[in-house]
Amino acid sequence: MKVGFIGMGNMGAPMAKNLLGAGHDVAVWNRTASKAQPLQAQGARVVKTPGEAARDAEVVVSMLADDSAVEAAVLGPDGIVGALPKGAVHVSSSTISVALSERMTKAHADAGQGYVSAPVFGRPEAAAGKQLWVVTAGPKADVDRVRPLLTALGRGLTELGETASAANVVKLSGNFLIASMMEALSEAFALTEKSGVERAAFLDVFKSVFARAPIFENYAGAIAKGQYTPAGFALRLGLKDVTLALEAGRHAEVPLPLASLLRDHFLTGVAQGRGDEDWSALGALAQERAGLPKKG
Amino acid sequence: MKVGFIGMGNMGAPMAKNLLGAGHDVAVWNRTASKAQPLQAQGARVVKTPGEAARDAEVVVSMLADDSAVEAAVLGPDGIVGALPKGAVHVSSSTISVALSERMTKAHADAGQGYVSAPVFGRPEAAAGKQLWVVTAGPKADVDRVRPLLTALGRGLTELGETASAANVVKLSGNFLIASMMEALSEAFALTEKSGVERAAFLDVFKSVFARAPIFENYAGAIAKGQYTPAGFALRLGLKDVTLALEAGRHAEVPLPLASLLRDHFLTGVAQGRGDEDWSALGALAQERAGLPKKG
Amino acid sequence: MKVGFIGMGNMGAPMAKNLLGAGHDVAVWNRTASKAQPLQAQGARVVKTPGEAARDAEVVVSMLADDSAVEAAVLGPDGIVGALPKGAVHVSSSTISVALSERMTKAHADAGQGYVSAPVFGRPEAAAGKQLWVVTAGPKADVDRVRPLLTALGRGLTELGETASAANVVKLSGNFLIASMMEALSEAFALTEKSGVERAAFLDVFKSVFARAPIFENYAGAIAKGQYTPAGFALRLGLKDVTLALEAGRHAEVPLPLASLLRDHFLTGVAQGRGDEDWSALGALAQERAGLPKKG
Amino acid sequence: MKVGFIGMGNMGAPMAKNLLGAGHDVAVWNRTASKAQPLQAQGARVVKTPGEAARDAEVVVSMLADDSAVEAAVLGPDGIVGALPKGAVHVSSSTISVALSERMTKAHADAGQGYVSAPVFGRPEAAAGKQLWVVTAGPKADVDRVRPLLTALGRGLTELGETASAANVVKLSGNFLIASMMEALSEAFALTEKSGVERAAFLDVFKSVFARAPIFENYAGAIAKGQYTPAGFALRLGLKDVTLALEAGRHAEVPLPLASLLRDHFLTGVAQGRGDEDWSALGALAQERAGLPKKG
Repeated sequence: MKVGFIGMGNMGAPMAKNLLGAGHDVAVWNRTASKAQPLQAQGARVVKTPGEAARDAEVVVSMLADDSAVEAAVLGPDGIVGALPKGAVHVSSSTISVALSERMTKAHADAGQGYVSAPVFGRPEAAAGKQLWVVTAGPKADVDRVRPLLTALGRGLTELGETASAANVVKLSGNFLIASMMEALSEAFALTEKSGVERAAFLDVFKSVFARAPIFENYAGAIAKGQYTPAGFALRLGLKDVTLALEAGRHAEVPLPLASLLRDHFLTGVAQGRGDEDWSALGALAQERAGLPKKG
Repeated sequence: MKVGFIGMGNMGAPMAKNLLGAGHDVAVWNRTASKAQPLQAQGARVVKTPGEAARDAEVVVSMLADDSAVEAAVLGPDGIVGALPKGAVHVSSSTISVALSERMTKAHADAGQGYVSAPVFGRPEAAAGKQLWVVTAGPKADVDRVRPLLTALGRGLTELGETASAANVVKLSGNFLIASMMEALSEAFALTEKSGVERAAFLDVFKSVFARAPIFENYAGAIAKGQYTPAGFALRLGLKDVTLALEAGRHAEVPLPLASLLRDHFLTGVAQGRGDEDWSALGALAQERAGLPKKG
Repeated sequence: MKVGFIGMGNMGAPMAKNLLGAGHDVAVWNRTASKAQPLQAQGARVVKTPGEAARDAEVVVSMLADDSAVEAAVLGPDGIVGALPKGAVHVSSSTISVALSERMTKAHADAGQGYVSAPVFGRPEAAAGKQLWVVTAGPKADVDRVRPLLTALGRGLTELGETASAANVVKLSGNFLIASMMEALSEAFALTEKSGVERAAFLDVFKSVFARAPIFENYAGAIAKGQYTPAGFALRLGLKDVTLALEAGRHAEVPLPLASLLRDHFLTGVAQGRGDEDWSALGALAQERAGLPKKG
Repeated sequence: MKVGFIGMGNMGAPMAKNLLGAGHDVAVWNRTASKAQPLQAQGARVVKTPGEAARDAEVVVSMLADDSAVEAAVLGPDGIVGALPKGAVHVSSSTISVALSERMTKAHADAGQGYVSAPVFGRPEAAAGKQLWVVTAGPKADVDRVRPLLTALGRGLTELGETASAANVVKLSGNFLIASMMEALSEAFALTEKSGVERAAFLDVFKSVFARAPIFENYAGAIAKGQYTPAGFALRLGLKDVTLALEAGRHAEVPLPLASLLRDHFLTGVAQGRGDEDWSALGALAQERAGLPKKG
């Protein structure tokens, strides 16, 4: 396929290289032109504007830093929308806002072009090693068309339906999960260190008990299904344990804001009559706050 | 060894059975006597009080529901402290408060007895299958003495030093990590569902990207070492992404309190000059809040 | 009346002096005896133990720093419970836990003594000037008996029913309101200062608009009655404005954790269909979290 | 003066009427024209577009619902920027974002026009009774020019310097203070009600102790000055009391998320060595989180 690739950062460059390796004809663009040079040696054509990369492409892929970079390259002067042929498809892999993804959905539709959102999970090394996980959403015909490219970028693909911005929400939710785990780890290390535990020792426990174990997967499954009874570990015991952690924090003088948040949610669960459900019924509370119909 | 075992709940019973299986001589006690019967069939002696189980034991292990149950069995009338021979050791495996663990440390020391804290990670099935992970702390001589029992209970052991209550803090921190991940998953499912993503599809992404992957382990290592430069993913990008998640939440009308907490912490990091460090520098912020000396 | 007074701190001393001034016969005790001396010059009898102060008193008032000081003076050796005559009343004015207040309720009842909880609002200057506000709860007969003393301590009295610990909850709630306002002010000053506003100028606005104005009183009335319609200012506008404040905070790099909390609550209100109610419907959300029956 | 007034909502209409009453010549515009009719009876000229109201005005005042309404009226077709004579001034009284205020600052400057931000505090009744409090910021010459109008709108004025958007931050901070107090009251009512206190009784305490008292004013002064020693009430006692409130909340099953936030902040203060400062040192913590230089 004739492909335009916008953005030669530490993610975009190895992704473009993988498309070249899969036999596609690739034109690349980067705001700082020098970063595009290495791709030329590997067979890419370097162009001067996003529009030039899109001009006669069947598919143009963009992988940029943030909303303003994407907005400029797609909707700005000499941008993708103005140049992409009717019927060709824009694949947006950047981590951007839902609002911008919705604006691009409309702009491409108005121009008779296709638009697919396809953010990726993985670091630059994963991009280089074709180990990214791609999540995608958009009109079925467009996704069908670009699927060979998406599968050339990584080790797997989850398709999320016809609303392109849904893939952006999933990418943002994934980064939110990582940040949450880091915050939880940060507080746990602070608490254990100030209680006299070597950081290396707590790391050893974490690796032995949690890392690569099915525990998070199992809880994710329970929350996905909204199945909170019978309780494996009752929510009121969750309240007990997080309260004990907070007391340990007061004892050692360690603030634990995430634990405070959990305590409030567990206590809400108990106050609302869910004390004997499984502690993963945190999932039910989140749904109720959001005004979603109850599961389970 | 001659062992007393206090508490035949769904954790205590399989643990006592494993000690029997390892060839130890075990006397068991439970508040509701009927629950101790099945162990009798497997060779245990059933006794009438915690004191009786401790009377001529070399080691007594307790595995009970909460602080008040442990307090009654250990410090109450006909309890362990009153009956355990001098030089014998009490191994406390319950999930209890730091304050109670410190009180028992003192009470046993005053009585010339040993005291080791040894909470376990794992569900009843893991207890039955000898798959628990044990964390332990206490005076070295006491830990040396009971190590054969601890290794008979599970698949591994992390030793945490001579302050018994440190093992309780680690156990509470572990449960806190699980609850944190459940809360993060709960919010992520609420956000993606209300944005039109099937819960099964988001579960598929979670399993493919996070579950059993080294990602959390890698971040735990960075936070343990306090190594936040060079940035793999800059903290100011973390602020950007969590802000986008909150905007997506407002768009779909989904409150995300854990994301709000993360936003405040990332923004604090940026305001304090850490915007270009890795986003795992959340760990540095937790240390500073706790008044710990800076790492990294 | 014959009165014992326990605790000659910066609150207790002026309170005891007011009782002397009202013509009562007062025996005073303090852990550090020297602090009781000034009262002697004003006609008080200084005694050696709390029990001695209680021995032949009709009423004993205690005003101490915290739970452990109260526990020692009331339930400890040579304490109030052991010495107070049957039918005499203990008035507890300290800021203590609900749990300790409940234990004292029981201990005094078991001993045939009366017990009234009567915490006070006001600083030492207010105590000296008889400007305290007293909140009290306990059995009606006991409150009737000590009312002349309570009115001698301050400018007014709110009676809260027969459950003594209710007065402790109200005192703790009052201190919580003060701390909340300080936190809100702290965040607002940080935001405005970093946005270029002199702290003195924002203080001027605060004094002109809020201080001593009926605004908080009016909202307290609405929340007390659970009357959230018609909206004076709609909850969805509250969400708009707190979101704008958070955006201003991001712009100026000022974390606003209390604003984040408010945003989540307003967004929950909108998601649950309360967007067109008055923004004081935060009160309805708090009731629902607590599992209380709905108002309004 | 010749004045244009944009927006005849429940705030704009009485404000415009006060300008008429002060003898000014006023042209009014409203998106829904019928709402402008009552002003005609009082001497105003009703016009068809914002531009028409601005065309030959010396000052144009706008009072609209939100960012999008202001953006349309000011920057849209036939809007204020396109029509206002050079040297004339736009006074923006709407509650809007800092970002939009900054955009208008630039747009008016580019067009050779003046721009002053002047949001108001007060309900429609206060607007009608000339009881609004106005906060204003902008270039000194522009503020000097419009001051007679601003003083005709309310009972007083605080001037905040030459950066127009600073007045918007102050308005948002004021609404944030109100919302914070409502949240605090909401949690306090939930806690006391579920602990058996009549809502009317707690309202009585609130009115007697806090409403219209100088307490909040005094703390605002301390935080403004950053004066946290000597302590009137030590931060570590604040930690004690808010912890007791949280324990009372657990006892009665009432989640108190604002109290949790306060606990974390007080505990951070203690961990960082501020336990003996006044509890208003919450202000110092907010400054440090924001990366502001320390006060006090």
